Amino acid sequence: MPDERIGHQQVDRVLDGFFTAAKERAERISPSYLSLWETLEKSTVGGKRLRPQIVMTAYTHLGGTDLEAAARVGAAFELLHTALIVHDDVIDLDFVRRGQDNVSGVYRRMAETAGEPAEVARHRGLSVGIIAGDLALTGAFRMLDSVSTDPMTREILAGILDEAVFASAGGELIDVDFSFAAGSPPLAEILDMERLKTAVYSFEAPLRAGAVLAGAGTEVASALGRFGRDIGIAYQLVDDLLGVFGNESATGKSSMGDLREGKRTVLIAYAAQTAGWPELSGIIGRPDMAPEDADRARRILVDCGARQYAQDLAANFASSARSYLECAEVPAGLAAVLDDVVSASVNRGR
Amino acid sequence: MPDERIGHQQVDRVLDGFFTAAKERAERISPSYLSLWETLEKSTVGGKRLRPQIVMTAYTHLGGTDLEAAARVGAAFELLHTALIVHDDVIDLDFVRRGQDNVSGVYRRMAETAGEPAEVARHRGLSVGIIAGDLALTGAFRMLDSVSTDPMTREILAGILDEAVFASAGGELIDVDFSFAAGSPPLAEILDMERLKTAVYSFEAPLRAGAVLAGAGTEVASALGRFGRDIGIAYQLVDDLLGVFGNESATGKSSMGDLREGKRTVLIAYAAQTAGWPELSGIIGRPDMAPEDADRARRILVDCGARQYAQDLAANFASSARSYLECAEVPAGLAAVLDDVVSASVNRGR
Repeated sequence: MPDERIGHQQVDRVLDGFFTAAKERAERISPSYLSLWETLEKSTVGGKRLRPQIVMTAYTHLGGTDLEAAARVGAAFELLHTALIVHDDVIDLDFVRRGQDNVSGVYRRMAETAGEPAEVARHRGLSVGIIAGDLALTGAFRMLDSVSTDPMTREILAGILDEAVFASAGGELIDVDFSFAAGSPPLAEILDMERLKTAVYSFEAPLRAGAVLAGAGTEVASALGRFGRDIGIAYQLVDDLLGVFGNESATGKSSMGDLREGKRTVLIAYAAQTAGWPELSGIIGRPDMAPEDADRARRILVDCGARQYAQDLAANFASSARSYLECAEVPAGLAAVLDDVVSASVNRGR
Repeated sequence: MPDERIGHQQVDRVLDGFFTAAKERAERISPSYLSLWETLEKSTVGGKRLRPQIVMTAYTHLGGTDLEAAARVGAAFELLHTALIVHDDVIDLDFVRRGQDNVSGVYRRMAETAGEPAEVARHRGLSVGIIAGDLALTGAFRMLDSVSTDPMTREILAGILDEAVFASAGGELIDVDFSFAAGSPPLAEILDMERLKTAVYSFEAPLRAGAVLAGAGTEVASALGRFGRDIGIAYQLVDDLLGVFGNESATGKSSMGDLREGKRTVLIAYAAQTAGWPELSGIIGRPDMAPEDADRARRILVDCGARQYAQDLAANFASSARSYLECAEVPAGLAAVLDDVVSASVNRGR
């Protein structure tokens, strides 16, 4: 999302090197293991490389000059991202991401093509997804080991990566709990879940890691961390809005997916407290939802004020995020770039 | 399995510290996250601590004196073991281990008790198992970061842990592939799978790690690694024999489980090449298998020579393992202890 592409090529080169080495090792074990690594690599190509970009932005604007080291820290976050989405898709029984088969989808399709019954093919896809995610998670920690820096900085970076996993797993658990709760969970819990599941590992941790690698003081690192947490929540709120009201061609995501799934978002939590809920709750969360039903659901979400509420909340978090940039220690250049990040986050899909 | 209990208490103390810290962090996130960590911790208690014992044995017999550091390396392997079995159980849709609910089993039962339909409760159990395994895997790498040693040794240790994950994932993939193959896979592939899935992370890697931490030369480390690989295969072959012919009260495992599941083992692969196969293949792999069918299957496995073959093969691998102990660099004391390991491995359950 930072519109600059600092070190973009370094990150790609580092990831390319990682996968090349892994594929060479895998090939010595079995052809199917090589295929798994190829599939995992493909699932990382074409992504926005948001987290590496955030690491690089913080690092270079805080005076860091070792782009190779920063690219490796960024690549570690990209591998963590890969691990988390592969496992998240397994948990959600999703076989498609960004309109393409994900890792589990590729293996489900292979089994189907081989004539396996649907249930068997599905189980196979999910099983391979679990293995692939474990490899990517291991890769994230190993990538960090390859960063050329002093032992103390390396340990702080590993601690940040650890915190990112810890928060994401905690958020994922809350999300799993949600799917068993009747009605909609309270707003505060949804915000908490989104912060833990996404904001920490996508924004807060990469910003702090970039700052630490650059040798910035703890004050800057924590100001950036707080900025990251709030902008991450704003980003997720906008994501949830786009998931319902977004233009499919612009977002690359079906704007019916979240409604069909009955995904627990701030939009839904807000609507659950309004007079629109009895009708809305009868429409959403149905795999066979018709386009007219989706239109009706959108209408209710607008009329009951849920859309406006979510928009205002995103703006509030964006504004809170901005306030941390005023910390005296954050260089003006970095503050300006991150200010653009804020604008880009809240104005996506407009 | 090494009958000495060197550093046993240190390992327990290190793991206890790890879980105490994690539970404190989790409690700050949510009560349900704390419960997950408690469940994960319980799943590690009562295990044999085989891998830490192997690390400690190699380390101390090669002159290592920092038991705290060795205990941390051992604990890293114990956490890796936890991660692998939790995810392996998810892949196998197993909810019980050693006669008790495993992590997924605990969460499935909670959901059932809360009135969820069976399919929903099952999915919930598996989802939480995926999250728990990720946390244990992350814990393994973080535990290694906490070992007090020089940076180069730490990097070699992390590389060994990485290779262990890499091999296990490759073995798990082959195992997943097996469950889709018609008939039985060839013997060589089954041995390959067992080496990758279990022998590397359970024997080869912990032995090498103990040697490296003790500052032993590469010759010793690789002799121990080869020993570990072969004894690991022997161990697994004996496990497979016990899974079919073992005394339930001695092994703590049902001796019908493997037959019911139709688990692909050397026993089955051998039988598949004999005249006993048409009858055997009609009996095994049926969830509703009766005790008389299991008795009949055992009879066929004896009569067709599969049992004898597997016993001989285990003895051959044990003997091959022993040959590596004759390397001049392996101290006599260590060779003697590992020789006992060999005997204990092949004589289990007798």
